Amino acid sequence: MREEILEMGKRAREASHLMAKAKSAQKRDALEKMASALRRERASIYAANRADVDEAVRKGLGKAKVDRLIVSEKVLDEMISGLEEVSRLPDPVGEVTRMWTRPNGLQVGKMRIPLGVIGIVYESRPNVTVDAAALCIKAGNAVILRGGSEAFHSNCRLAEILRESLAESGLPGDAVQFVGTTDREAVLDLLGLEDYVDVMIPRGGEDLIRFVVQNARMPVLKHYKGVCHVFVDSDADVEMAKEICLNAKVQRPGVCNAMETLLVDEHIAGGFLPEMAEAFRREGVELRGCEKTKLLVPDCKSATEDDWYAEYLDLILAVRVVSGMDEAIRHITKYGSQHTEAIVTKDFERAHRFVQEIQSSLVLVNASTRFNDGFQLGLGAEIGISTSRLHAFGPMGVEELTTTKFIAFGNGQVRD
Amino acid sequence: MREEILEMGKRAREASHLMAKAKSAQKRDALEKMASALRRERASIYAANRADVDEAVRKGLGKAKVDRLIVSEKVLDEMISGLEEVSRLPDPVGEVTRMWTRPNGLQVGKMRIPLGVIGIVYESRPNVTVDAAALCIKAGNAVILRGGSEAFHSNCRLAEILRESLAESGLPGDAVQFVGTTDREAVLDLLGLEDYVDVMIPRGGEDLIRFVVQNARMPVLKHYKGVCHVFVDSDADVEMAKEICLNAKVQRPGVCNAMETLLVDEHIAGGFLPEMAEAFRREGVELRGCEKTKLLVPDCKSATEDDWYAEYLDLILAVRVVSGMDEAIRHITKYGSQHTEAIVTKDFERAHRFVQEIQSSLVLVNASTRFNDGFQLGLGAEIGISTSRLHAFGPMGVEELTTTKFIAFGNGQVRD
Repeated sequence: MREEILEMGKRAREASHLMAKAKSAQKRDALEKMASALRRERASIYAANRADVDEAVRKGLGKAKVDRLIVSEKVLDEMISGLEEVSRLPDPVGEVTRMWTRPNGLQVGKMRIPLGVIGIVYESRPNVTVDAAALCIKAGNAVILRGGSEAFHSNCRLAEILRESLAESGLPGDAVQFVGTTDREAVLDLLGLEDYVDVMIPRGGEDLIRFVVQNARMPVLKHYKGVCHVFVDSDADVEMAKEICLNAKVQRPGVCNAMETLLVDEHIAGGFLPEMAEAFRREGVELRGCEKTKLLVPDCKSATEDDWYAEYLDLILAVRVVSGMDEAIRHITKYGSQHTEAIVTKDFERAHRFVQEIQSSLVLVNASTRFNDGFQLGLGAEIGISTSRLHAFGPMGVEELTTTKFIAFGNGQVRD
Repeated sequence: MREEILEMGKRAREASHLMAKAKSAQKRDALEKMASALRRERASIYAANRADVDEAVRKGLGKAKVDRLIVSEKVLDEMISGLEEVSRLPDPVGEVTRMWTRPNGLQVGKMRIPLGVIGIVYESRPNVTVDAAALCIKAGNAVILRGGSEAFHSNCRLAEILRESLAESGLPGDAVQFVGTTDREAVLDLLGLEDYVDVMIPRGGEDLIRFVVQNARMPVLKHYKGVCHVFVDSDADVEMAKEICLNAKVQRPGVCNAMETLLVDEHIAGGFLPEMAEAFRREGVELRGCEKTKLLVPDCKSATEDDWYAEYLDLILAVRVVSGMDEAIRHITKYGSQHTEAIVTKDFERAHRFVQEIQSSLVLVNASTRFNDGFQLGLGAEIGISTSRLHAFGPMGVEELTTTKFIAFGNGQVRD
């Protein structure tokens, strides 16, 4: 096995050299061909997927897990339109982001180049195979994919189709490789390939991510969790605050950019919290509040210290009344996960201070935390959200799958 | 010990929150105060340094190692002027590098913020204590320093002075902490502090760097070695090529951006190599050439396969005659270390292609490889050169000690 994974690494490195030279038109063409091929090969994809789903049912996997496995017509359509969207994004490679001239006449600049070889380790959803590969290809990288064993047949079939489309566009099929085994050891082997894989991106639950971080010898781009806060300032527009808080909590509670803790300035809490609690009650949200919150919302449960750290991913919300901005910032700094924080206020100075002092991957003024997403922020697509500060902090689009090299144009300059 | 290092990590994290809010004027003031304090405290610094040097001599350390330890008047003056230069650099923190508006009116941007806590593990030179701390402070970070045991007294005294100057400027002294023990275990403890140290930067020999990479649980910014190439194209200006090659090899052979392998197009080799070899001979450079080189330079030694991988850091040069651009690029891709590569040519298309296809941290046209250096490229100062592609690739200045967060300004936007 070790030998097989090592060979994949070597082939990926070779392919990455060719991908780095690929023309934009070629990469666009390959992505379009992939979309057409998925459309043409619907039947064989469904058949492969049926094998996975049947096996999952036979093994007695829970309904939620089986649901995530299923490649329905809608899921396949989304993969296809995702490929088409990524194909139309501007090519980040080759962009000269800055250029300046030194006193000796040497012209120095920074040029965007691919990262090289990207490893993706993920869990059950087969769409990651297509979505992640598309972004890596667009940015001129080679990718090694290792999906969950439950989706093995689906992933193999999808990867096969992607490889054929690459070859048809004159690009190396090995720019997309799928680890063709369900052997757990293979993941460890992959995480040890520091000379052949430049970065590892785990996608899935916290356990998977911690496993990757602990075993990877190359850098890892990841986020563990999102404990996102909305701070309703004393000078907030109460109606706006209610809409933002409701959206941040209930529009999709199971995702990392949903609000988990609401902080309310004590000067506005009396006029705001009872109405807000009523709105949450109508949506079935369970509140867990501090003592001051409970005085204003009598049927509210008591929050414990653990609640301030909790990522519920559910219709549960921790609520704390704070004495003002200072306490809000202290709370976020202590309990937050540096993912997404929002303030609702009409006051310029406090908005400005919140943006300066909160060091999360996205800091918003008067908007919902749910906007922390590559599509929503205008990156075109995203491969994940990073809460590590190195390389990328926040949603990662195609640009975050590149790096920059220095370039210098001279006419004979030497050093004294 | 573990407990002591853990406490340092916690104090660094606390200090980093305050440093992130520090005003530019405060940071500039602290750096200026550091410079004045070093000037004022010359006597106590020399005394501490004498203790280190005496002990090194007693232990029988080699002359080169002892030389590196010595804080002479010149070395101290350089530390002082380094502090003054860094103090005058523009503050990278708070810069909004881009800002755009989404269709829903949400204004989205990226704002530069400090990385957080930076760990530096280094070997004997005490100037690293001051130089590295200055760059970390300028970029709004806290830093934990762990220098070589030989320079223990010097480093302790220098760190003490830096801490006092921080406190005098109203900044937390704990933004600079020095691991006050020569215990080797302390390095391992430090490398395990993933929750408190955001990035580790090793400075020193390849052994030290490999040790840090293998044991660090946080990301590492590093480079192992520089096997730098100059390619003299068939269409090179021969005089320019000679000057650039001579400078790249002999101006300072012991550093990572010196040329280690010279590649010459066979069409120009006959007119170029004999003269070039003569110039190298005058400078005492030993040549190790391929078969074709030896035909043109009869007294040249034979290069073995190992020579193409070698970082001599000495007056030795591997020389290969290549059939043209394709072979030159293949050679660099196979044997190079992605550090620095230069082409000498008058031909636009080949210059263009070389810059596009070589994926090293600096690619030059018609200039010496010796320019891969933060000062020389105009970054103001450097903390090191990265040949990892994540986060930073090439020389790292104050900007590379920061990251960016997303910011968003709305007027009530929520997600559909």
